[in-house]
Amino acid sequence: MNNNLTPLGPKADKATVRRHNLSLVLRAVHDAGEATRAGIATRVGLTRAAVSSLVEQLLEYGFVTEWGKTSSGQVGRPGTVLKVARTGPAGLGAEINVDYIAVCVVDLAGTDRVRLVEHVDNRVVQPSEVLARAAQLAARALGSAAEQGLVPAGAHVAVPGLVTGGTVRQAPNLGWTRVAIEGLFAQALLALRPAHRALPVSSDNEANVAALAELWYGAGTEGVRSFLYLTGEIGIGGALVLGGELLRGAHGFAGEIGHMVVDPDGVLCRCGARGCLEQYAGQGALLKAAGIGTDAGLLGVAELRRRARQADPAVLSAIERAGRQLGVVVSGAVNLFDPDAVMLGGVYRELMEWLAPAVEAELARRVVSGLWSQDRGRLRAASPLGDAARGAAGVIVREVLADPAAYAERDDD
Amino acid sequence: MNNNLTPLGPKADKATVRRHNLSLVLRAVHDAGEATRAGIATRVGLTRAAVSSLVEQLLEYGFVTEWGKTSSGQVGRPGTVLKVARTGPAGLGAEINVDYIAVCVVDLAGTDRVRLVEHVDNRVVQPSEVLARAAQLAARALGSAAEQGLVPAGAHVAVPGLVTGGTVRQAPNLGWTRVAIEGLFAQALLALRPAHRALPVSSDNEANVAALAELWYGAGTEGVRSFLYLTGEIGIGGALVLGGELLRGAHGFAGEIGHMVVDPDGVLCRCGARGCLEQYAGQGALLKAAGIGTDAGLLGVAELRRRARQADPAVLSAIERAGRQLGVVVSGAVNLFDPDAVMLGGVYRELMEWLAPAVEAELARRVVSGLWSQDRGRLRAASPLGDAARGAAGVIVREVLADPAAYAERDDD
Repeated sequence: MNNNLTPLGPKADKATVRRHNLSLVLRAVHDAGEATRAGIATRVGLTRAAVSSLVEQLLEYGFVTEWGKTSSGQVGRPGTVLKVARTGPAGLGAEINVDYIAVCVVDLAGTDRVRLVEHVDNRVVQPSEVLARAAQLAARALGSAAEQGLVPAGAHVAVPGLVTGGTVRQAPNLGWTRVAIEGLFAQALLALRPAHRALPVSSDNEANVAALAELWYGAGTEGVRSFLYLTGEIGIGGALVLGGELLRGAHGFAGEIGHMVVDPDGVLCRCGARGCLEQYAGQGALLKAAGIGTDAGLLGVAELRRRARQADPAVLSAIERAGRQLGVVVSGAVNLFDPDAVMLGGVYRELMEWLAPAVEAELARRVVSGLWSQDRGRLRAASPLGDAARGAAGVIVREVLADPAAYAERDDD
Repeated sequence: MNNNLTPLGPKADKATVRRHNLSLVLRAVHDAGEATRAGIATRVGLTRAAVSSLVEQLLEYGFVTEWGKTSSGQVGRPGTVLKVARTGPAGLGAEINVDYIAVCVVDLAGTDRVRLVEHVDNRVVQPSEVLARAAQLAARALGSAAEQGLVPAGAHVAVPGLVTGGTVRQAPNLGWTRVAIEGLFAQALLALRPAHRALPVSSDNEANVAALAELWYGAGTEGVRSFLYLTGEIGIGGALVLGGELLRGAHGFAGEIGHMVVDPDGVLCRCGARGCLEQYAGQGALLKAAGIGTDAGLLGVAELRRRARQADPAVLSAIERAGRQLGVVVSGAVNLFDPDAVMLGGVYRELMEWLAPAVEAELARRVVSGLWSQDRGRLRAASPLGDAARGAAGVIVREVLADPAAYAERDDD
């Protein structure tokens, strides 16, 4: 039951309604890819005249562009095709992970137009230095974006840790505690671009934005609206998407699947507890079990893949063991949440062909509804490395789509 | 971002708006406990005249009653006090558990006006016989309700198992597979009351409605809107409430916390998998570990309590072990879903004083955000036995509140 006590049809403030409907029309064009004024009117339930007036304003702002007429083969009078603009409003996303920094500029249509990835060990330097390096990468990306006519409305920074209120509370795998990430990044970026207006900076957990990238640019576009997302990095990141919405939890800390328990009296974890999944199926644990140095990072993962392809028994058995433990925990999470799908990202994605059978076997055995074994394709590889940055950029793009007038007005300053 | 493509302020059908606003006003009275016309107008944002007209209709339908004037001590002119009616519309709820059947009639204000509980072993008879017995209890409850002037709008039946589309897919602890619960119950009830109109019957998982009872009549009324609910019965039921809404999952099977894994190679569970929590911290496992017969049911729980109170070392250690295992799994669920609180019901409620310290210790150790140890009172005892029936009755009451006109029109048939 809907408990919202808002009456239907009150007279809302006229400017507020127009502002809302401007977003409505823009999102209709965005979601459809291309649309005519008549098609939008049908979709959103406004009159053709109202839609035309709103489209004029969006054209003026530069949020949509006209692309010739619909072909005569289609039903009805041919109309002018509208698409969202490929210049102008955009989002900047940055992912700071243990062994790389990725930066991405995404346009209004969701395409990543600039992407820069730098492999560095972020554990050996101070947080402020890491953020300064991320700002350098961001400044370069903003330069390339400007050359393509793109003007990001803000920056969204993602970190593998607990992030609330602009601060990383803790990111054990980076060794960070209480880092004012938004302030440090904004300051570093402003110092590099003194002639530019300060970019609004927001922040989130890395797995959260990676899951949003899946929702907006990956599996979600195929109709998967509820899924569990796991990413094997140095640690294990996790996020839950329910009915097309990210589940944040009561304090913003939901999705910490890496700290679900495999063995209550087992290996000590960096979080301070014993037997967390991360210590058995994280990238470090996997490399160690396979006899590869844990400090090898992404090179180590490549080596793991190479040896798995050669059917090295020690490597295959290490992956199989990690897959079983992953499968046990994921089965528990599936019993608790009943998602449509489970997405594996990061190192899991790279090892999918060897890892998936063990995970699937546990799911088939343990998911109570019995649905897992009947429905194929519910365990899936997530998008490739760096898509947390794309998701982060997408957060900014969604903000622009949700209130284009706010962006246009700010631009007029 | 809200992706809902409904424009603000379109002209909705007039009758639809009135119907919606009728519910709005009724819910405003319901939520406030008592209200004046002026107070409702302020709360829901409709004009005083519109509210008065809607209130007249609700008085005519018999959904609200007038209760004299507000005292002169209050601000503004004294107004007539309105409350929801204590006769007329109501809900019938039934809970069929392993060793009891509970039936409840709840009035529009949420008070349980009739409650009947019968202790029986439902494992030893056929599902159709169990449902016939539940129908007998329901018929008796409907008789008592009629004497109090209450007319239930429907019946909602809850079972500890996977329930979808009117069918219990499986309820391992009852030994049920594919039982058409709604049809069987409706038929049995109609046979007992041939002179009455058939009552619409709906159904759900027992832990789900018990969690809704917590939300509507328990913790939720104190502002706890996101919680994990666990009930220790013969099995372990679980449910998740997020922001005041029950999480059902993609297929309706969310909340199966009893089948999260304690030991991957451990004890075989009735679900077919190994090492499920239910086998370590369910009522049966607890009684067995304490050296009390597992078939003793509720009497066994009373015996367990008695011995715990006498500080019987075997019993205290059995409860402590179960509490630790419960705590490990609950910590995982808290890491995944970050709720405001965890509610323990059923046998856990009865054993709270001995169980809670072990569960709290694991939570303090394992919840990654570190918030658990800072915030007190997040582990709570749920409402007493039988409140699943109250929650089930509440589901019907909420349906009436959501569309009072539909109920009034049906009554006119």
